[in-house]
Amino acid sequence: MTDTSRPARPAVLGQNQYGKAENRVVRVTRDGATHHIKDLNVSVSLSGDMEEVHYSGSNANVLPTDTTKNTVYAFAKEHGIESAEQFGIHLARHFVSSQEPIHRARIRIEEYAWERIEHSGKGAHSFARQGRETRLTQITFDGTSWEVVSGLKDLVVMNTTDSEFRGYVKDAYTTLKEARDRILATRVSGRWRFGWTDDAQQAPDWERSYEQTRKHLLQAFAETYSLSLQQTLYQMGARIIDHRDEIDEVRLSLPNQHHFLVDLEPFGLENDTADGAVYFAADRPYGLIEATILRDGCQARIPVDLSNL
Amino acid sequence: MTDTSRPARPAVLGQNQYGKAENRVVRVTRDGATHHIKDLNVSVSLSGDMEEVHYSGSNANVLPTDTTKNTVYAFAKEHGIESAEQFGIHLARHFVSSQEPIHRARIRIEEYAWERIEHSGKGAHSFARQGRETRLTQITFDGTSWEVVSGLKDLVVMNTTDSEFRGYVKDAYTTLKEARDRILATRVSGRWRFGWTDDAQQAPDWERSYEQTRKHLLQAFAETYSLSLQQTLYQMGARIIDHRDEIDEVRLSLPNQHHFLVDLEPFGLENDTADGAVYFAADRPYGLIEATILRDGCQARIPVDLSNL
Amino acid sequence: MTDTSRPARPAVLGQNQYGKAENRVVRVTRDGATHHIKDLNVSVSLSGDMEEVHYSGSNANVLPTDTTKNTVYAFAKEHGIESAEQFGIHLARHFVSSQEPIHRARIRIEEYAWERIEHSGKGAHSFARQGRETRLTQITFDGTSWEVVSGLKDLVVMNTTDSEFRGYVKDAYTTLKEARDRILATRVSGRWRFGWTDDAQQAPDWERSYEQTRKHLLQAFAETYSLSLQQTLYQMGARIIDHRDEIDEVRLSLPNQHHFLVDLEPFGLENDTADGAVYFAADRPYGLIEATILRDGCQARIPVDLSNL
Amino acid sequence: MTDTSRPARPAVLGQNQYGKAENRVVRVTRDGATHHIKDLNVSVSLSGDMEEVHYSGSNANVLPTDTTKNTVYAFAKEHGIESAEQFGIHLARHFVSSQEPIHRARIRIEEYAWERIEHSGKGAHSFARQGRETRLTQITFDGTSWEVVSGLKDLVVMNTTDSEFRGYVKDAYTTLKEARDRILATRVSGRWRFGWTDDAQQAPDWERSYEQTRKHLLQAFAETYSLSLQQTLYQMGARIIDHRDEIDEVRLSLPNQHHFLVDLEPFGLENDTADGAVYFAADRPYGLIEATILRDGCQARIPVDLSNL
Repeated sequence: MTDTSRPARPAVLGQNQYGKAENRVVRVTRDGATHHIKDLNVSVSLSGDMEEVHYSGSNANVLPTDTTKNTVYAFAKEHGIESAEQFGIHLARHFVSSQEPIHRARIRIEEYAWERIEHSGKGAHSFARQGRETRLTQITFDGTSWEVVSGLKDLVVMNTTDSEFRGYVKDAYTTLKEARDRILATRVSGRWRFGWTDDAQQAPDWERSYEQTRKHLLQAFAETYSLSLQQTLYQMGARIIDHRDEIDEVRLSLPNQHHFLVDLEPFGLENDTADGAVYFAADRPYGLIEATILRDGCQARIPVDLSNL
Repeated sequence: MTDTSRPARPAVLGQNQYGKAENRVVRVTRDGATHHIKDLNVSVSLSGDMEEVHYSGSNANVLPTDTTKNTVYAFAKEHGIESAEQFGIHLARHFVSSQEPIHRARIRIEEYAWERIEHSGKGAHSFARQGRETRLTQITFDGTSWEVVSGLKDLVVMNTTDSEFRGYVKDAYTTLKEARDRILATRVSGRWRFGWTDDAQQAPDWERSYEQTRKHLLQAFAETYSLSLQQTLYQMGARIIDHRDEIDEVRLSLPNQHHFLVDLEPFGLENDTADGAVYFAADRPYGLIEATILRDGCQARIPVDLSNL
Repeated sequence: MTDTSRPARPAVLGQNQYGKAENRVVRVTRDGATHHIKDLNVSVSLSGDMEEVHYSGSNANVLPTDTTKNTVYAFAKEHGIESAEQFGIHLARHFVSSQEPIHRARIRIEEYAWERIEHSGKGAHSFARQGRETRLTQITFDGTSWEVVSGLKDLVVMNTTDSEFRGYVKDAYTTLKEARDRILATRVSGRWRFGWTDDAQQAPDWERSYEQTRKHLLQAFAETYSLSLQQTLYQMGARIIDHRDEIDEVRLSLPNQHHFLVDLEPFGLENDTADGAVYFAADRPYGLIEATILRDGCQARIPVDLSNL
Repeated sequence: MTDTSRPARPAVLGQNQYGKAENRVVRVTRDGATHHIKDLNVSVSLSGDMEEVHYSGSNANVLPTDTTKNTVYAFAKEHGIESAEQFGIHLARHFVSSQEPIHRARIRIEEYAWERIEHSGKGAHSFARQGRETRLTQITFDGTSWEVVSGLKDLVVMNTTDSEFRGYVKDAYTTLKEARDRILATRVSGRWRFGWTDDAQQAPDWERSYEQTRKHLLQAFAETYSLSLQQTLYQMGARIIDHRDEIDEVRLSLPNQHHFLVDLEPFGLENDTADGAVYFAADRPYGLIEATILRDGCQARIPVDLSNL
């Protein structure tokens, strides 16, 4: 029956968006012999009066994705890239204000960090890419108000002690033994939403905000004696809320990168943590702990599942 | 100021979930000398009364993620794996009904397809993995009602003609030339939500539903003369809504995998599509077209950004 | 001492090669409304009189890598792509014979397979990418003789029975239990070298050779009752040598993709292979079994470690 | 004919090797409240009298790969991990000297670098993974002499000026324009072979050697005014040979990560390098420049194609 009948209720278009994803732009600025770089991956996504292109294929309202790519490169030259956030704000404002059919623009940016190579030659134009985490931001503009969600991914951290896991529920499928001294390691994926929503408000110092927020994440991870990864996660998010007035909401996704104590008894060896131990770093499966931490009274707006922003 | 002041409004916990992700389970069943396999990647995510573990680190309400892993393997033996959907339903029901503090369970499953190796030996227990798309499902249960969203990712398709792109908006940043005959290629990521929400309803035939929905996606892609990728996307979604009564909502994310006609004029060659042409298959950037197609009257529930389900 | 002294013996240049890697070329041919495609990833690597460009930076002997890229696309149009091997032969001959400083050319090609989408519309120009293995070839030409090494990677296969592992060496670090019935699964990476070396010889039918060699690999894997993965590997290689006169040498690299029988005893379940069992598919570590199988009297020329050809 | 005939010359076994790959081992050492970590990925590969296991499946000479895994973890506890090289030497010596059928052992190791998290809490047991390059080593032992090849991969570097590319060969397929000021960026993959081959010689300080060699690579890249990437490559290798007596051979593989100056003229913008420019960072294709630099009089032993060591 399912296969052949025709529905009484036809298909209709719901939410839709389009644009050019992953525009890789490198902007060099020269201050005499000293060069500076910004290395970004910019994705544009536009929404608005787009019913016709879906229903009939008419492109009359469609600014080509190729044009959005050109705009990214032209703006990088015209306006420079002060910060990923500021650059995204320029772009989002442009698309919504210059194209009548476009009602909403969302700009997602990845930023890759570089450090200078120390050497004895002339000039300062040599860089090595830092492999540390990737910085992220997402700018959404509907013509009136802004939403800025920044964050990071692939920040890998480890505590080699001060982590326990005990006192949990035991059911018929529980075989895990309690741990009083384990490694706690995770690959942090985080997003944080700014309170700034309006051009009339003073915008945060985006660069300083990022460096400070990253520092708070790392310090809270290091300074928390952990009874569970959930507790550590909460401390990391709360540290940001407590110290960064400009941020109202934090979402963290923390895979528990299990480091299992290897059983060396068959070989006559005691693998005791107190004495310095040997661990097997496992790939899959892994625990996955996710939560939102909010400033009291604020609404949660960051999606529960962090996608590939 | 931002850096030092203490907020009047403290941090509070919002939505949270936890579980064991990416449990790789292979279930063999034997029908005499003929073997069958199911190859899944199962992720468990649980929510409920979990304030304490975040605030104080008390694990009194926490069923360990290790236990959820054990449950996956034990259920694969006890109940078998009829379909990914049915297996996820068993698991979700178990966690919510057996653990009082757990109010919601979400099971995400990837399934990898294998085909038999044809040979002249004895038995039928040899398989080669099909590299085609990965099948997906997500089961959510809150103790009362079900939400089942199935789908796929990495289904790569190409039309070598019957695709145009013309009549679009031209602004100051537009350089793209109109195309009357281009390659249209994409890597389909799709999700579809079933109308089934209640144990009292008859559940769909999950296996047949998947194969038919996949077939409709492919056929709609192939049979649509495309004026824009948005139009093709809508046809793909609408084809499912029109032919599969059990599905109320479809979300598609279609990266436009650009194949650029190479300029061979400098070498005295005409690279004419009508005559069979040579294309450069580009990596980045790429157009990204995303939309929801709904059965009229239904509410959209699939997230706008398809995460790594 | 090591850090400061100057060596008596200075640095000199050894083997070197250069070219443009990973040129992604799609060639469409039209036979009326029926289209055909070849989808390749072509890498060019050239060697010859290149001392000066390394020592002084003089590019007087250097054909730009950009030119080698252009040549790939121009040749795809001019000569078509009958097979990856034939296309590579055209390219290698061109570079060595047209550029006096270039003494050796090596062309590496990956080929991606597509299948037609069955549908009821007009024309035959719609394709879905087969995710099965990637086909490979490497053509080397020094102006006189040819070496053709073809192969594949990422061919994933599994036997769910007819595999044992017993009677091995036990030392002080051995804890593994013998297995009489286990899953044997691997991701085949293989290369095979053709006897064809000279334009005066008749070249093999490259397309048929590939399909037949692939078939022999699969069948030998399926039909071998395995006492160890080494035995299976040898049977796979020998099957090719025995049935394909045009091939003189085979190199196989077989990761043992471990599928561990899950211990379900703590849950009162017997996980017996004879009854259909549940396995944990592990990621790392994995056994890695590699060997060359030669036609008696032939010299081995394929490198011991298969790189990312 | 090819398909059916039986060869007069049967298949024989050539070079073969086996072992457990990618054992992920983390070793913690405690110096009071200060912890230190070594994070390695260790792959074992053994060769010797292994004809029987290939021909008949007899495992009488086969030490299981599982045992080689156990040995890695046991040795990490027993002997500690002073350096990746020293650890590999322990392992290789053990396998060759303890198992009569094993004549050669090769140990490959990846090492991941971590840095301490600065914080105000107690103890020093918190780390963040540095994403910089992966350190590599390969130890080969045949019972008599040693070969140690160390190196790195994924060291990404960029010069934003002081790079030209001019004066190259122009043929019928050349369209590239000469560049007097371009970005030069690459992802360095390098291997270097030590002169140390005998237990009677004093072994190098492996840790210091790595840090100094890495420094020389970076400085030579930064300090070279480049007329071609080949010239830069040679300078990088020669710098090591000139300054590190313990190293006799260097192999470098440098993909030219093209950063193309974007044409902004259609938008009325001049994208002049001297003024700070905007670049498109391309993925594929890429130039690939590879060469060996030797200490005069030494033989080259590092393979021409750097595999996934």
